[in-house]
Amino acid sequence: MSDFIRRIAIVGGTHGNELTGIYLIKKFQQFPHLLHRQSLECITVLANPEAIAVNQRYIDRDLNRCFANEDLANPALTGYEDRRAKEIATQLGPKSQPQADVIIDLHSTTANMGLTVLPSSKHPFNLRLAAYLSALNPLVRVCCGVQCNQDAPMLRSLSPLGCTVEVGAIAQGVLNADYLQQTELLVHAILDYIDALNQGEILSVPSSLNVYQIMSSVDYPRDSSGELQAVIHPHLQFKDYEPLCDGEPMFLKFTGESIPYRGENTVYPIFINEAAYYEKKIAMTLTRKQQLRLETV
Amino acid sequence: MSDFIRRIAIVGGTHGNELTGIYLIKKFQQFPHLLHRQSLECITVLANPEAIAVNQRYIDRDLNRCFANEDLANPALTGYEDRRAKEIATQLGPKSQPQADVIIDLHSTTANMGLTVLPSSKHPFNLRLAAYLSALNPLVRVCCGVQCNQDAPMLRSLSPLGCTVEVGAIAQGVLNADYLQQTELLVHAILDYIDALNQGEILSVPSSLNVYQIMSSVDYPRDSSGELQAVIHPHLQFKDYEPLCDGEPMFLKFTGESIPYRGENTVYPIFINEAAYYEKKIAMTLTRKQQLRLETV
Repeated sequence: MSDFIRRIAIVGGTHGNELTGIYLIKKFQQFPHLLHRQSLECITVLANPEAIAVNQRYIDRDLNRCFANEDLANPALTGYEDRRAKEIATQLGPKSQPQADVIIDLHSTTANMGLTVLPSSKHPFNLRLAAYLSALNPLVRVCCGVQCNQDAPMLRSLSPLGCTVEVGAIAQGVLNADYLQQTELLVHAILDYIDALNQGEILSVPSSLNVYQIMSSVDYPRDSSGELQAVIHPHLQFKDYEPLCDGEPMFLKFTGESIPYRGENTVYPIFINEAAYYEKKIAMTLTRKQQLRLETV
Repeated sequence: MSDFIRRIAIVGGTHGNELTGIYLIKKFQQFPHLLHRQSLECITVLANPEAIAVNQRYIDRDLNRCFANEDLANPALTGYEDRRAKEIATQLGPKSQPQADVIIDLHSTTANMGLTVLPSSKHPFNLRLAAYLSALNPLVRVCCGVQCNQDAPMLRSLSPLGCTVEVGAIAQGVLNADYLQQTELLVHAILDYIDALNQGEILSVPSSLNVYQIMSSVDYPRDSSGELQAVIHPHLQFKDYEPLCDGEPMFLKFTGESIPYRGENTVYPIFINEAAYYEKKIAMTLTRKQQLRLETV
């Protein structure tokens, strides 16, 4: 990373039915002056045009799992998303020397995750940016994936700098004006932050940051044929980022019994009841909350 | 209609990504005793198995628009849903002499419509049932379609008796425990009501009923190529069944301007921001509220 960050890629429509990112990118393409910053060049990418056209998450497989190095290098993977991943990697990558200094990938979720930032790595730049954004807007939460580095198969992993943004709860195929506006403000805050950094401006960044570190995921209770036997318990529905303690209800079986969470440690579930994760066998993702001290620059 | 109603069809999965009805039907099929009523025979139908398998609304076209008489009689219509509609009409119909006395078709919506009952016709049986259900649960609202009769192309039109149930706001592809439970309670209340009627029990039914009568629909503002130019205004989002008066905000353009509702009469919008209606060019449906006096039996 040079002292200056010049080229920012803002990506939407990695999933074709997450309209927030798609319509923000369309708006930025229609009104490019919105992205003008003195020290920056911003490029916009609609990542999965065929999925967008049919308003589905993907055509052949989840594009946001196609960016593992070995998959990008594998000519035998010829499905639509695998081809598209290679094109995007050519445009923004390669991972070893990305052409986009920072990648911001805009997503939405049916879980009640408010405004979540998932940094592409724990690079000090990303953590300070995340701390700046959380201080600016207390509704912003910061979550680190299990693979919070460039080994991850997500689009964001093409660069070590940047993040995925998840906003919700929003139904697939729906535009929500509030979240559209909040996501746009977040993008502007990121650009303003980087532009100020480039110009040597002293920005106030907190000295610590609360991070939700993903540990594991939990599937729905299923029978031997894989059929669901329970749903998210009503006490847990829409309670993303709230503490869940041993014995508290997690699922409700169709027969009426509650299934509690069992674990010594309090966890903070997120992606609770994300529509796209039923097929991935994820009912929710468990995180632990931790406070990181930030390096001073 | 005979004095007795014997055969009730409970239908789910007319749209393959509306999981509430699908999982209720699966539950009823797994635990058929739940539907046992002394005077009734209940049959359950998963209407669109191929769409359910791929978690999409439909394969070729909206099954719930395939039940117009002319389409059912048209052998040239051979898409999956057209074939399925003919099979269902053979099982539950024909419209002129349905084998199912009452049809209850279970749907969900991304609009905030709570528990909505759309009667298949204004037959006194349906209106009294709707009045009974609203009195039992004040969250139940009753809405009559533009075609509130057997000329409608909906599955429910196979019989003059029964209704569509719409619950929401629920994202497509998601199960919500609360709405699952409320929908099940509604089905039980309907069966109990009919069973009591058959047995000559005197049921308390209000003498009048508030009905939301659908008048027209409103599309999103679009440019000449059909591209959206605005979203539902944040003041209107999730405000289904609330009054909307002349001059109040309806849409918010991507450029930031509000577009107000213009009309002499106060309207009550429903299906606000239903995901599946973007392609139908329906941003919301306008209703007027009216009070019906019910015939005494």
